[in-house]
Amino acid sequence: MAEVMGNTGSVAGHVGQMLSTHPMAGKGADAKLLRCIEACLDCSSTCVSCADACLSEKEVQKLVACIRLNQDCANICDVTAKVLTRQSMPDADVVRSIVQACLTACRKCAAECSKHASMMEHCRVCAEACNACAKACEGVLAAA
Amino acid sequence: MAEVMGNTGSVAGHVGQMLSTHPMAGKGADAKLLRCIEACLDCSSTCVSCADACLSEKEVQKLVACIRLNQDCANICDVTAKVLTRQSMPDADVVRSIVQACLTACRKCAAECSKHASMMEHCRVCAEACNACAKACEGVLAAA
Amino acid sequence: MAEVMGNTGSVAGHVGQMLSTHPMAGKGADAKLLRCIEACLDCSSTCVSCADACLSEKEVQKLVACIRLNQDCANICDVTAKVLTRQSMPDADVVRSIVQACLTACRKCAAECSKHASMMEHCRVCAEACNACAKACEGVLAAA
Amino acid sequence: MAEVMGNTGSVAGHVGQMLSTHPMAGKGADAKLLRCIEACLDCSSTCVSCADACLSEKEVQKLVACIRLNQDCANICDVTAKVLTRQSMPDADVVRSIVQACLTACRKCAAECSKHASMMEHCRVCAEACNACAKACEGVLAAA
Repeated sequence: MAEVMGNTGSVAGHVGQMLSTHPMAGKGADAKLLRCIEACLDCSSTCVSCADACLSEKEVQKLVACIRLNQDCANICDVTAKVLTRQSMPDADVVRSIVQACLTACRKCAAECSKHASMMEHCRVCAEACNACAKACEGVLAAA
Repeated sequence: MAEVMGNTGSVAGHVGQMLSTHPMAGKGADAKLLRCIEACLDCSSTCVSCADACLSEKEVQKLVACIRLNQDCANICDVTAKVLTRQSMPDADVVRSIVQACLTACRKCAAECSKHASMMEHCRVCAEACNACAKACEGVLAAA
Repeated sequence: MAEVMGNTGSVAGHVGQMLSTHPMAGKGADAKLLRCIEACLDCSSTCVSCADACLSEKEVQKLVACIRLNQDCANICDVTAKVLTRQSMPDADVVRSIVQACLTACRKCAAECSKHASMMEHCRVCAEACNACAKACEGVLAAA
Repeated sequence: MAEVMGNTGSVAGHVGQMLSTHPMAGKGADAKLLRCIEACLDCSSTCVSCADACLSEKEVQKLVACIRLNQDCANICDVTAKVLTRQSMPDADVVRSIVQACLTACRKCAAECSKHASMMEHCRVCAEACNACAKACEGVLAAA
């Protein structure tokens, strides 16, 4: 992952660097945690973008459920990234419950976006980001 | 202030008005839902304020767990208010999972703030807001 | 203001209480600041609701500009409320620039919502909330 | 991870893909816009992490101004990324005013973090992220 994370200026790069410089950090940031933070940040911005792209489609009326799930998923991934990024005295129950909500939102949004994936490329990409985030949430929940 | 706030005297006034004007709205906004949205908005801004007040206390080192829970609770209440406010094609599983996460965060933050309530008035008020929000979340979960 | 703020559980109530219990607080929270925080919180949740209500309207295609401005205004009011709520060592330039952005967003969103106010009650209420917030931002900028 | 990230190896990969699939997109996403969205997302999560790392430092009392600016900068970068990501009928004045606020916050936060950069690696990395974001904001403002 080093070459991915290195001096590319990617979101992933600084998150990894930051976690490793935290006064509470152990030998290194947990790989599953880091992957989940990255996936949440990616999924959140992808969902903001998909909601917005759907809004500009001619048949926007047929995409209301998709826009709605995009918005919820964007908001929930956003806060999950923040909760997971903080390393100072985390509460295990709070962490687990928000990751569980994130997993639920990502699965539902992926399922909805997948319905339109063959017609709209933004929904295909968004389903991919949601599925990746759901998988990363499962990784964190399994390890917790 | 009356003219700013409308005839309820609270920020919640506009939320209630808005819910009742939604094209999908039934005879009227559900009272438990409205109470929960109000409580989430109140708890979120109270937690932002409590984290900030703790940060200015002389013995801030002893308040790290409190600040941390305030931040998580603020973020989670914020997104819960947004998810509950939206009335267009909600997904019941997503709604339930975020309200569950909100309930968990509010209970934990209330418990932590209560420890310092006799020493710091901001923690006493914040525990009150968290407890009220936890109760409102229970109301929504019981009805769902 | 006591009866407005008292035991109604309104957002406004706890924000005022919290500001007055902050270790850095002077004799009392500044009235213009408090009014602006309240107006930002109200406007943010009203805009979330208006975007969502527009999305459920039959002629949603004609409301894309309105939804877009609702979303931007909701996000910007939200962060403005947070920045203004924090009392620990504020940076005057940061405060001023975000309140300026909030004023701009509120004016634009009010203007757009006003175009549909006679047809859709949610747009009428939202324009009202945006105008109130713009006025409160002007109050803070004039005092800064 | 290559398949998740696309051919840039960064979270930014999906943002770029999404912008290019938007129904309103021209020949391709504007490079300055994309760079600014990426920089805002990176800076926002880096600031969340820096505030949290500062909170766990022994001499947290000396870091209150830094934590405060980290929080404001995180919130403002977050909303700026959202506003810039949306491509449906943007309002040029709203865009310009939030990018201006973001530039102000990034410059101030970079200056504060730089003071502690030799002592705390997380502040050094955060100053770097803030400076990169400030530069990207300047790029967008110059092009607007």
